[in-house]
Amino acid sequence: MRYALGVEYDGSEFKGWQQLGESGCASVQATLQDALSSVADAPISVVCAGRTDAGVHGECQVVHFDSDVERSPRGWVLGTTTRLPPSVCVRWCVPVVDDFHARFSAKARRYRYRILNRQVRPALYRQILSWERRPLDADAMHRAAQALLGENDFGAFRSAQCQALHARRELQSIAVHRQGEVVEVEVQANAFLHHMVRNIVGSLLMVGAGEKPESWIGELLAGRDRNLAGPTAPPQGLVFVGPLYACSWKLPDEVTL
Amino acid sequence: MRYALGVEYDGSEFKGWQQLGESGCASVQATLQDALSSVADAPISVVCAGRTDAGVHGECQVVHFDSDVERSPRGWVLGTTTRLPPSVCVRWCVPVVDDFHARFSAKARRYRYRILNRQVRPALYRQILSWERRPLDADAMHRAAQALLGENDFGAFRSAQCQALHARRELQSIAVHRQGEVVEVEVQANAFLHHMVRNIVGSLLMVGAGEKPESWIGELLAGRDRNLAGPTAPPQGLVFVGPLYACSWKLPDEVTL
Repeated sequence: MRYALGVEYDGSEFKGWQQLGESGCASVQATLQDALSSVADAPISVVCAGRTDAGVHGECQVVHFDSDVERSPRGWVLGTTTRLPPSVCVRWCVPVVDDFHARFSAKARRYRYRILNRQVRPALYRQILSWERRPLDADAMHRAAQALLGENDFGAFRSAQCQALHARRELQSIAVHRQGEVVEVEVQANAFLHHMVRNIVGSLLMVGAGEKPESWIGELLAGRDRNLAGPTAPPQGLVFVGPLYACSWKLPDEVTL
Repeated sequence: MRYALGVEYDGSEFKGWQQLGESGCASVQATLQDALSSVADAPISVVCAGRTDAGVHGECQVVHFDSDVERSPRGWVLGTTTRLPPSVCVRWCVPVVDDFHARFSAKARRYRYRILNRQVRPALYRQILSWERRPLDADAMHRAAQALLGENDFGAFRSAQCQALHARRELQSIAVHRQGEVVEVEVQANAFLHHMVRNIVGSLLMVGAGEKPESWIGELLAGRDRNLAGPTAPPQGLVFVGPLYACSWKLPDEVTL
């Protein structure tokens, strides 16, 4: 039996979604697998829709796993959440057909990046905001970002460690808006390269601060040279809002196209 | 010279605004005074607009203090924030005339209470949300809450430890609305009694869950018996948004009527 789970986590407590090399560092994946295996009383492995880096949060990560153990969806949700640390929970569980795949069935992914834009660092919301003290022109950032729309080679915004075979991705929407002291970047693509959102945000910040013209983002994209782009924005401002699937899979609304 | 400061803090790291009895527990006030005293190189005491309990957050607490030390407002903001732990910062500093008093000059105070309303506990935003698993009717809570408007005796919603001389307060506005899984209560009064917001929310939750009729809130108010009201809602959902002052004090917009 295959199940899909919606998972929420506070990335500040983990070394990323996946265990990478050095032991002793907790990953969200290992933590979730431990809890699921305890509920099932048998080893369970999960496959996720999108791996997140250390410090990056998940609002509705989706994973799938297989288990012969008979449990109700409610049993998986509550039993697993009880065994998870306070920084992770399972939001929902849905039985799915065997050809559903959390990663390969996803048609799109959504990310949100939040920047506190004021003279002083954040205190109350410091776990979920990055910080920029230079005044940002969010409208200029929004206009500049529209140059990224469509299917493009995003080589200018991938990290040196990116293992993707090619850099072509379809960026479906990107919006920058200000709510008081917070500037928010919302972006959706069919898939993302390693550090792609944080590198885009890092470059948009230079436009917002007036260091670069709005046309620069389109020029970076066309140049495909990651050495020219802005610095990678810090992880704590980034939330993986979640993947989107075709409605035929009958998953909850929040992850359905 | 008298100064007013806007202060933001994450209440989950403190035993409340004020040191109460047992030593060894950090209070926001003592932490702030230590940082200010270090900047001034002389002891500084602050007076706040509204004391908050353990676990309650501050978005823009206002304090005043007196100092003969010559520092620019920017110097107070940055120097103090540098000496504060990550959970506290000074948002702004304004020189004020000597008869300004953070507590007595405040015309009103605003609080916000946020409840995550779903089957599973919060993970990513757990520091700033309380949690209710029973489905809440936010519209019913909003209608019920309107019975509290105006100048009333709020004895039904004060804690047993409340030291106020009388329980008459003017509740100027209260609104309950839902944004997705979060139900938010926003309330403004000239002043609040001890636990007043959390006791009001605790009773509104019983209306929202259908345990009590909408008319119950008005009946509780009229009865003035705190033993009949709902349980005190937990602190982590509560944020002291800040006080409001007359515009003649020339304070930042966010704390000006």
